[in-house]
Amino acid sequence: MDERLQRTVGAVRAAGADWAVLTAPDAVAYATGHVVPIEAGPSPFAGGPTLALVGKDGSAGLVVANVEAAASARAWVDAVEVYEGFGFTHAAPYVANYLDSVRRLAARLGVAGKIAADPRSFPAWLDGILPVDRALDVMTPLERTRATKTAAELAILQRAADAAALGQARFVQALRPGRTELAVFADIRCAIEEFAGERVPVTGDFLSGVARTSGFTGWPTDRVIEPGDPVMADLAPRVDGYWGDSCAVTVAGTPRPGHERLFRASKDALSLAVDLIRPGLAISAFDQAIRGFVGKAGFAYPHHSGHSIGTAVHEFPRLVPYENSSFQEDMVVLVEPGAYDPEIGGVRSEYMLRVTATGCEVMSPFEHVMAVGG
Amino acid sequence: MDERLQRTVGAVRAAGADWAVLTAPDAVAYATGHVVPIEAGPSPFAGGPTLALVGKDGSAGLVVANVEAAASARAWVDAVEVYEGFGFTHAAPYVANYLDSVRRLAARLGVAGKIAADPRSFPAWLDGILPVDRALDVMTPLERTRATKTAAELAILQRAADAAALGQARFVQALRPGRTELAVFADIRCAIEEFAGERVPVTGDFLSGVARTSGFTGWPTDRVIEPGDPVMADLAPRVDGYWGDSCAVTVAGTPRPGHERLFRASKDALSLAVDLIRPGLAISAFDQAIRGFVGKAGFAYPHHSGHSIGTAVHEFPRLVPYENSSFQEDMVVLVEPGAYDPEIGGVRSEYMLRVTATGCEVMSPFEHVMAVGG
Repeated sequence: MDERLQRTVGAVRAAGADWAVLTAPDAVAYATGHVVPIEAGPSPFAGGPTLALVGKDGSAGLVVANVEAAASARAWVDAVEVYEGFGFTHAAPYVANYLDSVRRLAARLGVAGKIAADPRSFPAWLDGILPVDRALDVMTPLERTRATKTAAELAILQRAADAAALGQARFVQALRPGRTELAVFADIRCAIEEFAGERVPVTGDFLSGVARTSGFTGWPTDRVIEPGDPVMADLAPRVDGYWGDSCAVTVAGTPRPGHERLFRASKDALSLAVDLIRPGLAISAFDQAIRGFVGKAGFAYPHHSGHSIGTAVHEFPRLVPYENSSFQEDMVVLVEPGAYDPEIGGVRSEYMLRVTATGCEVMSPFEHVMAVGG
Repeated sequence: MDERLQRTVGAVRAAGADWAVLTAPDAVAYATGHVVPIEAGPSPFAGGPTLALVGKDGSAGLVVANVEAAASARAWVDAVEVYEGFGFTHAAPYVANYLDSVRRLAARLGVAGKIAADPRSFPAWLDGILPVDRALDVMTPLERTRATKTAAELAILQRAADAAALGQARFVQALRPGRTELAVFADIRCAIEEFAGERVPVTGDFLSGVARTSGFTGWPTDRVIEPGDPVMADLAPRVDGYWGDSCAVTVAGTPRPGHERLFRASKDALSLAVDLIRPGLAISAFDQAIRGFVGKAGFAYPHHSGHSIGTAVHEFPRLVPYENSSFQEDMVVLVEPGAYDPEIGGVRSEYMLRVTATGCEVMSPFEHVMAVGG
């Protein structure tokens, strides 16, 4: 049994449940290995969300639409119910087909007893088939067990980190004044997709110019990059169901006065983070240290210090002032201190770090991208 | 009141409901004008799906996560409840926040009486707040009223058709042996995104070579395009919340023997479709005529003859053998006859057509792309 399924079973038990119904793409991918396609939104022929059932005895199964059947071959669960959604020879009542498939899977696995579900996405129409006990919370123990990564996950996350780093390398090659943000972003995404061998969902930020980089968040637009513009590439690609993340700011030409101070505050804070992170360090203390370092340099960043990552792009624990937990070995975290000035722009430097037994290591560094002037 | 909201109100009445709860991105966009971002999947900080409430009296409102608040400024409903999902200064209980927002919106609008919902995505956790009558079907009348487009929709769909046609024009410019499918696709998407001025979700197919084009469906891979390869670009971009669609097959160099027969069967079937389509024509008869034409040429296509389009990439009515309805003025349909041979490859030719009072017109033709040899 894949260790992720085993850990999901542990979460089911911790919730005091006999079964869990998972309906969010990240939870389904974690428990079963089935990666739900997300880039074009929900299929018009889906009768409901792709669904996983996991029992406290280790039984598990999937309900997928016919258009996802091929992808489900990579899942490590045996019981897969495929329902007809998309077809053309007759009217497929896809909602009824979906409900029937869930009913069949539940019967096949012998679902009974206490059932826990995801409050964000469990469809009401399944209530009669899977009578959920809404007092049970399986999502919190699942989020907790997902915080440290299995060996298999560390390998995929390394690939995701490599994909992000490759995107950063392409970023500095593709950047030049006169191109739009979208054109540079297209080259970056192409490099990532050729690395993965397939289309890759990408989130994050891509911003150029003083106003946009100091505003620190947003997707690329048709803004034309001008000489001297700071350009921020926060690149988060999903490769094989796992997200990578990264951020660097490069200047298209000669940096503006003051840019180096922003750069040093952000980049040195990231270096400090790499020095500090080790198992047992309280996350709130860490956040305070990094935030304080940037503050001392004369800047502040109005966002988190970072986050964990896996089948979701942001996972528990987040690196935020109010977090009560501590770093543990085999967590994978992003640290992303930023320094912003509305007159100069913004710099954010972000690495993906694996927490080791004694400290942490940068999973796929791109130091040459993180340099004043690029 | 936007005519789309008015029509949604009509669907609520036709369902015998007092209120409808819409939770699918396409339905929310149709009723309210709020375009839900989809490209990176559901936000990890969403407490549930972005939601619209529409009353039979014309009242309407939205519940959106704070990260979608800026986008909701373009919606034409006044009541917008924004809940805190993503933040960093304190733990935001986003599920509770979402439920509270729905409760507030329902109170603000005075929701009472019979409530209809979307069986595919209405979250069970909302049951206590919005007691849905599951016997009511608002989705079918909504799907029916969406089949003909309003003037505002025709304008946006024209833009989506133009975006797709622009992608096709870039396709022939970018295509050359030695490039990967992904690299050509990246150039196409970049052209579409620069046209739109922002990131654009794109679905469809991108395939090269005999085996892949005759297999007729799939996203681009790192396969390297070889001289003489047929290359199929089925491009469906979502611009301002509305999908465009299109398909052409071009050859990277000199076409293989037999390719022209495939091309003629597909392209002439499309031309026949443009000649045939007019209000009142039965869709099943149309499907039979087009399918029969390709069959006479010695080929068959194992898929639909086309589909309607709007805020969903496939809408009612689909152009399939079993469809009982007829074409009506102001429908926007895709027609996509294909001809496939495992030894030669596949050709599919697809235009976006607006049904006029007396016939139909191609919304954004790209004849120069649809040519033997490209």
